[in-house]
Amino acid sequence: MSLAAALLAGPSAAQRRAIAKAITLLESTRPDHRLQADALLTELLPHTGKSFRLGISGVPGVGKSTFIEALGLFLIERGHRVAVLAVDPSSSLSGGAILGDKTRMERLSMDERAFIRPSPSSGTLGGVADKTREAMLVCEAAGFDIVIVETVGVGQSETAVAGMTDMYVLLQLPNAGDDLQAIKKGVMELADLVVINKADLDWAAATRAQAQIGSSLRNYGHSGRQASHPHVLQVSALKSTGLAEFWAAVDLYRQEQVTSGGLEAKRRAQAQDWMWERIHSGLRQQFADAPAVRALLPEITAQVLQGQLAASTAARQLLNRFLETFKHA
Amino acid sequence: MSLAAALLAGPSAAQRRAIAKAITLLESTRPDHRLQADALLTELLPHTGKSFRLGISGVPGVGKSTFIEALGLFLIERGHRVAVLAVDPSSSLSGGAILGDKTRMERLSMDERAFIRPSPSSGTLGGVADKTREAMLVCEAAGFDIVIVETVGVGQSETAVAGMTDMYVLLQLPNAGDDLQAIKKGVMELADLVVINKADLDWAAATRAQAQIGSSLRNYGHSGRQASHPHVLQVSALKSTGLAEFWAAVDLYRQEQVTSGGLEAKRRAQAQDWMWERIHSGLRQQFADAPAVRALLPEITAQVLQGQLAASTAARQLLNRFLETFKHA
Repeated sequence: MSLAAALLAGPSAAQRRAIAKAITLLESTRPDHRLQADALLTELLPHTGKSFRLGISGVPGVGKSTFIEALGLFLIERGHRVAVLAVDPSSSLSGGAILGDKTRMERLSMDERAFIRPSPSSGTLGGVADKTREAMLVCEAAGFDIVIVETVGVGQSETAVAGMTDMYVLLQLPNAGDDLQAIKKGVMELADLVVINKADLDWAAATRAQAQIGSSLRNYGHSGRQASHPHVLQVSALKSTGLAEFWAAVDLYRQEQVTSGGLEAKRRAQAQDWMWERIHSGLRQQFADAPAVRALLPEITAQVLQGQLAASTAARQLLNRFLETFKHA
Repeated sequence: MSLAAALLAGPSAAQRRAIAKAITLLESTRPDHRLQADALLTELLPHTGKSFRLGISGVPGVGKSTFIEALGLFLIERGHRVAVLAVDPSSSLSGGAILGDKTRMERLSMDERAFIRPSPSSGTLGGVADKTREAMLVCEAAGFDIVIVETVGVGQSETAVAGMTDMYVLLQLPNAGDDLQAIKKGVMELADLVVINKADLDWAAATRAQAQIGSSLRNYGHSGRQASHPHVLQVSALKSTGLAEFWAAVDLYRQEQVTSGGLEAKRRAQAQDWMWERIHSGLRQQFADAPAVRALLPEITAQVLQGQLAASTAARQLLNRFLETFKHA
C-alpha cells in the first residue's frame, strides 16, 4: 500500500506509522525526499482542510501542556480525533522546549484517538512553521478533525501560528504584569480568545486579570472578533473547570466563521501568504548560499560598516554578483 | 566642476543647483544614471555622517509643516544649515501629501540656509525610503548639519524613518483618543521623544495627554531612552512656545548618544539593515519581474487558492522556475 493510501485508509496502527513516516519525509532535507514529499502533499491535498485548526500560545510556565492534555482528553471523549503539533523555533538549540519531553501529555499521547508530534527542529522559524503546516495537512488527510498547534510566547512564533490556524488562543496567568507584557508585544491583537489559565492559583487575581484584559481588548478595538464572543475566559486545567465553557466559545467562533465565509477567506489568504513567505525565504537562502555572494560579502559589509560604501550601492553590487553567477552557470 | 566638487565646495547658488541635480540623478531609474549615482555616492560618502538626523512623524492635521518650519527657522537663526526631506509612500498616488504643495514652509524654503525636498514618488515604501536615505547623504556632504526627515503616521513609513534617523520624534494632538491610536500602532515604542503639538488648542487637554502618554511610555518600558530625558513635551508651533525646550531635549539626547557610543552603534546597525533590506527587496523585485515567473504565477496561485497545490510546493515550483531561467540565459 502506498504511503498516501495508508494515510487515507482510516484509523489503525498502520495509519499511525504512516503519519509518522510521512512527517519524517516532509522534514527531510534530502532533495529526493523533498520531491517525494511534494508529490505526497499534492496527493493528500484534496483530503485536507476538514479539521478545525486551533492555535494555542503562552509563555513558559503558563501551563500549556496541562491545558492541551486536558482539552485533548475532553475532545476525544466527545468523539473527536485530536492532533497536537508544535512550533518552537528554539527547539534546534535547546533540544526541544515544547513536547520534547516524552513524559509530557502522557495520558493523551497513549490514546490512539490522539496524535502528538514535537516541533520540527530545522532551525529558522520559517522552516519550522513550514514543516508544521505540512504536518497539519498530513494529520487532516488522516482524518484528525481537531488540530492543535502549540507555540511558546517568544519572538515571532505567535504570528506564524496565528497565520496557520483558524483560531488563536492566548493563555495567560492570573497576573497583571504578565498581561502588560503580552499587550506590549502585540500578541493580544492576534488573539481570538484569551484564557486565564491556572485560575485556581488565585481566583480573585484571575477575575481582576479577566476584567483588565477585557478592557484592554475593547480599547484596542480588536477587529477579528464579534461582540458575541466572550473575550476572556477563566480556566483551571488542574481542576478541569472551564473546559466546557472554553470549547463552547471555540465552537461558537467556528460556527460564525463558517457561516460568514470568514473561515474560507482566512484560509485562502493564509495559503497565499504562506506561498509568498516561502518564496521570499527561498530567495534569501539562495542568495546567502551562493558562493559568489559568500566570497564578496565580508569585504562589502566591512566597507558599509566603515562608511566607505553606501548601503544601497553595496546591495546593488551584491545583487548583480548573485544574478551574474546564474547567467554564467 | 564635477557634481561632487560642486556639492563639496560650500554654500552657494551653484551648490543648491548641484544638490537638486544630484538628488534627481539618485531618483532616476535609468541604468546609466544609476551607475553615475552610485559613483557619486561613493565619492561623497567620506563627507557624510556629520549631521544630526532627526525623524519627525505625526498623523495628517497634527501640524508637522508648521512645526518643522518653526523649528527650521529657530535652527538657522542659531547658525545651523537645515535640510528637510520627506518619506511619503502615498506620494506617487496622491501627487504628494507631504511637501508637495510648494506654498508650504514658505519662509523656510526661501532661506538659503535651508534646503527642502518633497518625497520621492517611486512607488514602494522601500524605494521611497531608499531615495530619501541617499538624498540625506547628499545634503550631509553639502554641509547641512541638521537633516529633518518628515513622515506621515501611516503604514510602515514610521519604521522606515526611525531606521534612518538618529532620533525619532512623534507629534501628537492634545487628544486622548489619538494617543491610544498611536499606542496601538506601536509607533509610541519607536519614539525617542513625544511632542504634544498645538498645545494652545487646549492647554488643559495637552497637560492631561502629557501625563497619560508619559505614563504609557513608563508602562511600556521604552528601552532606547534614558531616565534623564523628558519623555513628553508640550509645544505650540503657532505661538512658537516650547521650541527652545524641544531643542534642548534633542541636544541632550544627542550628546548622550555621542558620548555613550550609542549613536555610532545605531548608525552602523542602520547601514547594515539598510543593505539587507535593499538586497531582499531587490531579490523580490527580480523574482516578480522574471518572465518565466510571470507566465507561471497566475496558474500556480489559482491552484493554491483552490486547494489543489500546497503553498510550500507551489513556492518550490516557482523558485525552481526562476533559478532555471538564469541558468539557461
